[in-house]
Amino acid sequence: MTTNIYEQHLDANQANYAALSPLSLLARAADVYPGKTSLIHGSKRFTWEQTYARSRRLASALSKRGVGTGDTVAIMGANTPEMYEAAFGVPMTGAVVNTLNVRLDAAAIAFCLGHGEAKVLLTDREFSKAVKAALEEHGNDQLLIIDIDDSEAGVDGELLGSTDYESFLSEGEPDFQWSLPDDEWNAISLNYTSGTTGNPKGVVYHHRGAYLNALSNIIGWNMGHHPVYLWTLPMFHCNGWCFPWTLAAVAGSSVCLRQVNAANMYSAIAEHGVTHFCGAPIVLNFIANATEDERRPLPHTVKAMTAAAPPPASTLQKMQEIGFDVTHVYGLTETYGPAVMCAWDPDWDELGIEEQTRLKGRQGVRYHVLEGLDVINPETMEPVPRDGETMGEIMFRGNIVMKGYLKNPDASDEAFAGGWFHSGDLAVMQPDGYIKIKDRSKDVIISGGENISSIEVEDTLYKHPAVLACAVVAKPDEKWGETPCAFIELKEGVEEVSEAEVIAFCRDNLAHYKCPKSVVFCAIPKTSTGKIQKFILRQQLDDGE
Amino acid sequence: MTTNIYEQHLDANQANYAALSPLSLLARAADVYPGKTSLIHGSKRFTWEQTYARSRRLASALSKRGVGTGDTVAIMGANTPEMYEAAFGVPMTGAVVNTLNVRLDAAAIAFCLGHGEAKVLLTDREFSKAVKAALEEHGNDQLLIIDIDDSEAGVDGELLGSTDYESFLSEGEPDFQWSLPDDEWNAISLNYTSGTTGNPKGVVYHHRGAYLNALSNIIGWNMGHHPVYLWTLPMFHCNGWCFPWTLAAVAGSSVCLRQVNAANMYSAIAEHGVTHFCGAPIVLNFIANATEDERRPLPHTVKAMTAAAPPPASTLQKMQEIGFDVTHVYGLTETYGPAVMCAWDPDWDELGIEEQTRLKGRQGVRYHVLEGLDVINPETMEPVPRDGETMGEIMFRGNIVMKGYLKNPDASDEAFAGGWFHSGDLAVMQPDGYIKIKDRSKDVIISGGENISSIEVEDTLYKHPAVLACAVVAKPDEKWGETPCAFIELKEGVEEVSEAEVIAFCRDNLAHYKCPKSVVFCAIPKTSTGKIQKFILRQQLDDGE
Repeated sequence: MTTNIYEQHLDANQANYAALSPLSLLARAADVYPGKTSLIHGSKRFTWEQTYARSRRLASALSKRGVGTGDTVAIMGANTPEMYEAAFGVPMTGAVVNTLNVRLDAAAIAFCLGHGEAKVLLTDREFSKAVKAALEEHGNDQLLIIDIDDSEAGVDGELLGSTDYESFLSEGEPDFQWSLPDDEWNAISLNYTSGTTGNPKGVVYHHRGAYLNALSNIIGWNMGHHPVYLWTLPMFHCNGWCFPWTLAAVAGSSVCLRQVNAANMYSAIAEHGVTHFCGAPIVLNFIANATEDERRPLPHTVKAMTAAAPPPASTLQKMQEIGFDVTHVYGLTETYGPAVMCAWDPDWDELGIEEQTRLKGRQGVRYHVLEGLDVINPETMEPVPRDGETMGEIMFRGNIVMKGYLKNPDASDEAFAGGWFHSGDLAVMQPDGYIKIKDRSKDVIISGGENISSIEVEDTLYKHPAVLACAVVAKPDEKWGETPCAFIELKEGVEEVSEAEVIAFCRDNLAHYKCPKSVVFCAIPKTSTGKIQKFILRQQLDDGE
Repeated sequence: MTTNIYEQHLDANQANYAALSPLSLLARAADVYPGKTSLIHGSKRFTWEQTYARSRRLASALSKRGVGTGDTVAIMGANTPEMYEAAFGVPMTGAVVNTLNVRLDAAAIAFCLGHGEAKVLLTDREFSKAVKAALEEHGNDQLLIIDIDDSEAGVDGELLGSTDYESFLSEGEPDFQWSLPDDEWNAISLNYTSGTTGNPKGVVYHHRGAYLNALSNIIGWNMGHHPVYLWTLPMFHCNGWCFPWTLAAVAGSSVCLRQVNAANMYSAIAEHGVTHFCGAPIVLNFIANATEDERRPLPHTVKAMTAAAPPPASTLQKMQEIGFDVTHVYGLTETYGPAVMCAWDPDWDELGIEEQTRLKGRQGVRYHVLEGLDVINPETMEPVPRDGETMGEIMFRGNIVMKGYLKNPDASDEAFAGGWFHSGDLAVMQPDGYIKIKDRSKDVIISGGENISSIEVEDTLYKHPAVLACAVVAKPDEKWGETPCAFIELKEGVEEVSEAEVIAFCRDNLAHYKCPKSVVFCAIPKTSTGKIQKFILRQQLDDGE
């Protein structure tokens, strides 16, 4: 085969090719904006020059200890500068950063350290108890343990390591000569899924995808330059939805927050002029349901991005009324965090708030850098019609889909069957091309042969003024197979509500077959990222029988 | 060598990898915003669904005629929907779009068609005279010629082709199954440099770079979604600085403009709510110097991006006063158009307009997707100090540097010597890391051993209230080697100014050795993109002697 004229002497070279990597974004921030604020943490302030130097010190110190391409560095950390620096310093060595969910128990931590083959563990004192137990279980003497001893931490956990983070940084050089990866397909991070059944799976990201989604966050959210970003979303969660890298790209300031609650959020907004934050609906609920004492006047409209579960319409509406501009996004650990957004159509500005809220409650359309998104019948692999009725599975295709699951070829092959990433989320495609999730595959309730979307029932329950949080799961039933059972957490200080009242409220608003047959009033169990843990509720039902 | 755990069964597949290409951006616009306006041209309106279908028809029709990967499709067009569609339709076939400068003479057109080995030529009737002569010189019977017969064209040039554009589109299918390139490094476009000396060089872009710069335009300029973009910049110039692709990404509306003048620009802004436009300083001058009759009230602040030559401080200041927000960018054909921008620092908001204008007159810092930019001593390849004094050559590195020059390995090797792209522009690096161009290498005037920046002298001349346009070039001199000679075009209706007055004005504002020794009053010759053609002025000096 002869080459065409465009393939002759027009190859890649040092001048015209660079591997795509978010590391370039930090280098640029330090180069262009050395003196601007990168991080705010309590009374501490860092500039981009400092953050770059500290990240390079970390990389240098790790390199001196033999960490390099393809090694894993795990970190058990809160939203602190150390976590931010690790998002850059670890990959600068060629190694892979594995941020651990701080709510994991000892067994799960031990599993991750073992499965990910971590050579180094950075660990915040707050989490020493679980980590210590995990290390006993893990039993690897070779693991280098470095304590993060954060002055803003409320608790003095045990020191577990052979050194602490600041001492370790001083082993490294601030002008460490790092290089971009040889291949942009190289892994940059490892994120374990929460694993509601069986062992967690290790989702692997590459430099290319991290770079592209970092930019896509900016474009999708119209972020502008120099935003002030409040860290309510855990940085361990999908690498903070790629926002550590996004913020380097736009030279924004990160306001760190160890404890997420309404008072802390309102204070940070008022004191630092926060412009943006991300969080699960539970975080929006903090804001929406804050007491008068907790509230502070907003310095300007604050943009919030929410995902992880479809936000209840009532929360969206309330946020908008208070003066927050909420963008609804959707994605999975496997898609670098957000990969779908409910893009706002300016034509909707004229609509009433209820209609706006309904439109905004949809997951929406693909991110700018995502090449394919559709609701597909997994049997036939054909897209469902755009009728808003036919359910199918949401599937993704493109550069912000993970490399695959670490050391789990079967799970990877299954996830990528037919050339699409299978999300496991069931949805309909509405006539305007916006996706609306109906349920997780495993959360659908099948009652008398009819599929009931647990989310639809929950959305109705959230309209009841006394409901703070709720979850609807399938309860085994001799006659119907399954029936919907509602778990409800009531707002503080409201009048008691009875099971019969709740069911009656649902029957006024929903087809009768979709209404809960039983109601349990309790505290709703949630993950650290605000996802409701329905498997615990199901277990509760099983145990009760 | 053993592979690490992140290289095992984590390969690219259809679900997690797609070649980066701006073609994806059009597909997304049509998918997400089918009914929004893509193009406005006179009384014509197109939606994204239509633009996508028409681009696919074009691709389909070209494919049926045998056009495919590595072929060249040339287009001699004005800023019309056909040009816009070609930016997508041609690469959808795998072919390379070669937009020709409409001001080229017959010999240059013939050279480009021959050198680029065009298989197809799309040509607007307005340019038939030069094209016809070129075709006679070119003498290739195999070339498929398609006329663009635009109803908005002012002139009825001869029809040269075997078919016209609309008939040709009807040969193609609107649902043509195009595919992304096998390799994102594949060529997407060919742009001939203006070639002030010798034959033009053919700059080759790839899909990867076009995609990345399309996104970088959005991020750098904070464009937001759905801008209304006025086409004052020729689409043939560096593929319209990648803006056809940018506008698909943000689903913006393109307002086409065949004739760029003050009245047309103000009308378009008022009628269509234009939010953004790009153009050389000459285009800003149209706006700044418009008569009362030509002006219309602005519906809102309009963002203008300017480059191609450093804008005179007086123009920048005037634009700002009228209500235009000007962003100064810099780049070359070799860098996909803009690759450097004078990023505005919010701290400068407090400064006076003169100081702001001085800061904004600098070329600035690297684009978000550019990995390397520096002012480098080409002898030693060391960066110059950040002292604002030491001159060096501006050099670039990264994914938005061209593949190379077509069929010109020597020129490519020279341009990429030492692993950097050599721009040929001389500049200083200021202490804050912003680049300030002093001159093109070839435009520096060396007088008595001192380097004189022609731009510095021109900037001084522009401060004179009677000067509309000016250019300073080296005049051979027996005593000094060279001396600065000023060519000046005066504003209409101003009082005459003498050579002595001009020189005196310069001596009040400049070191004496930098002042022009001679002044010529005349119309200043410019290229179609507003670049002043100094080589013509030099020729004039040579001919006169």
